[in-house]
Amino acid sequence: MKLTILGCHAASLRWGAFPTSQVLEISGRVFLIDCGEAAQMQLRRSKVKFSRIKQIFISHLHGDHYYGLIGLISTFQLLGRETELTIYGPRGIKDIILIQLDASESYIGYPLNFVELDSDKPQKIYEDEKVMVETIPLKHRIYCNGYLFQEKPGPRRINIDKAKEAEIDVAYFNKLKKGSDVPNKHGKIISNEEVTLEPHLPKSYAFCSDTQYYPKIVEQIKNVQVLYHESTFLNSHQYLCERTMHSTAKEAAEIAQSAQVQTLILGHYSGRYKNREDFRKEAQEVFQNTLLTEDGKQFQF
Amino acid sequence: MKLTILGCHAASLRWGAFPTSQVLEISGRVFLIDCGEAAQMQLRRSKVKFSRIKQIFISHLHGDHYYGLIGLISTFQLLGRETELTIYGPRGIKDIILIQLDASESYIGYPLNFVELDSDKPQKIYEDEKVMVETIPLKHRIYCNGYLFQEKPGPRRINIDKAKEAEIDVAYFNKLKKGSDVPNKHGKIISNEEVTLEPHLPKSYAFCSDTQYYPKIVEQIKNVQVLYHESTFLNSHQYLCERTMHSTAKEAAEIAQSAQVQTLILGHYSGRYKNREDFRKEAQEVFQNTLLTEDGKQFQF
Repeated sequence: MKLTILGCHAASLRWGAFPTSQVLEISGRVFLIDCGEAAQMQLRRSKVKFSRIKQIFISHLHGDHYYGLIGLISTFQLLGRETELTIYGPRGIKDIILIQLDASESYIGYPLNFVELDSDKPQKIYEDEKVMVETIPLKHRIYCNGYLFQEKPGPRRINIDKAKEAEIDVAYFNKLKKGSDVPNKHGKIISNEEVTLEPHLPKSYAFCSDTQYYPKIVEQIKNVQVLYHESTFLNSHQYLCERTMHSTAKEAAEIAQSAQVQTLILGHYSGRYKNREDFRKEAQEVFQNTLLTEDGKQFQF
Repeated sequence: MKLTILGCHAASLRWGAFPTSQVLEISGRVFLIDCGEAAQMQLRRSKVKFSRIKQIFISHLHGDHYYGLIGLISTFQLLGRETELTIYGPRGIKDIILIQLDASESYIGYPLNFVELDSDKPQKIYEDEKVMVETIPLKHRIYCNGYLFQEKPGPRRINIDKAKEAEIDVAYFNKLKKGSDVPNKHGKIISNEEVTLEPHLPKSYAFCSDTQYYPKIVEQIKNVQVLYHESTFLNSHQYLCERTMHSTAKEAAEIAQSAQVQTLILGHYSGRYKNREDFRKEAQEVFQNTLLTEDGKQFQF
């Protein structure tokens, strides 16, 4: 699983401060999460092949999370894209994109779908044979979802040495992967556990931005491998969280701690802070395994 | 008169290739012309004070000329702007901006006006005591205007030495500036021409992008001081101009030559060309005083 941070800053686009956008590569899928202004510039830099992005997930309709979407859709067209693209986002996003495509009299030559969301309950919105995606309803000034990306459990892994030793024919390997006991060359039933290993642990990533401190999400993201949780402010500005409906680094860490995640990643930093390390320090007082986003940074998990 | 090129490239935003946006400073006014994606990044770099921009002129509703507008309007709000802002652009631009402001439930705390254009004839759309702005209807795939910025003729300039010599009281200087003859201390009528100089030559700038070769504009931009004319292609790709409704460097130069402008500036380069100098060379075969835009470049006239 690879996470590329295209932008990790709150509010307006500046040199060296791109608004929220991330690329998640999981099980061979490439998902774009949020798409702040100029995300396409950062995307080119990240060397992600544009045609591999088939799904875009938009959390909410504040500009710093989606103003780059129309530009990206248009660029895909200019580059001759043929691959289908599906946009998941709050109700209203389709009209916003279509009014702009209409005004330009642009014909989009690839299938462009919208899945508009308005439920305040978690919903499974995407599923294929390897991965599924659920919404994580958040608490912000406007309707806003985080997204939970989960690999499905893979097959059991064959312990080749043990399987040879037990004289099992390769024709039975698929059955073994599915967990069945199988006969060996001499007709003796071999217990699956003797010749296979546990499946690889499924990867999972929860993206939670923007939101007030909202413990209700803990149950849904319990034991997730990697949690990105916004930390717009430090605790010294906690009083701003109520009005703006954002979180502090400490609050993000408390969510990580309660959900017993493996790794916490912070981001969506307000422009008022010069020293990014203060976010890490504050979070680590509550949750040790805390990492910081930076524009362009890549994480492997 | 100062012209700052925020972006000068056709089509999609890339590192080192910003789409069209320019800042024109004339007679103390600061006008923004077109606003491609990420124009606000470039605007910060240019050191233009945001609050000095009170008018934005959008040529047409292709994304590379206005996708940065909503981000700029939002950033002005975040920065606590109070100064009025007026957007001039094709009919439809208001709905595009308002649907996005509505979706974000954002309250814009400064007066935001729209002047929507749909005439195919030149119109005077802005005038104050020093400057006026007219549309230049262009010929593109969708409705598109260039803009002509003109200083009004200033007052006659008093030749202080001559005025003293002629013994004219300072109380008459305003009359002199307006071109009147005035009496001196002894009641003798002094001819205006004896004690004043011609006004400074009014500055003027014509912005013409995007357009097919369109000689109809020549009459309106005749003798303009500086002409920016798009040159998306070189003459070797002239066959693309008909379908895309763009111009070559040669065609831009022919317009400059016919209109007898002082200076031609080229831009809106297609991404297919590596060597920018080829544009200058091609144009200079027709019109000698040709300059090239670059992102971030500033011209003084």
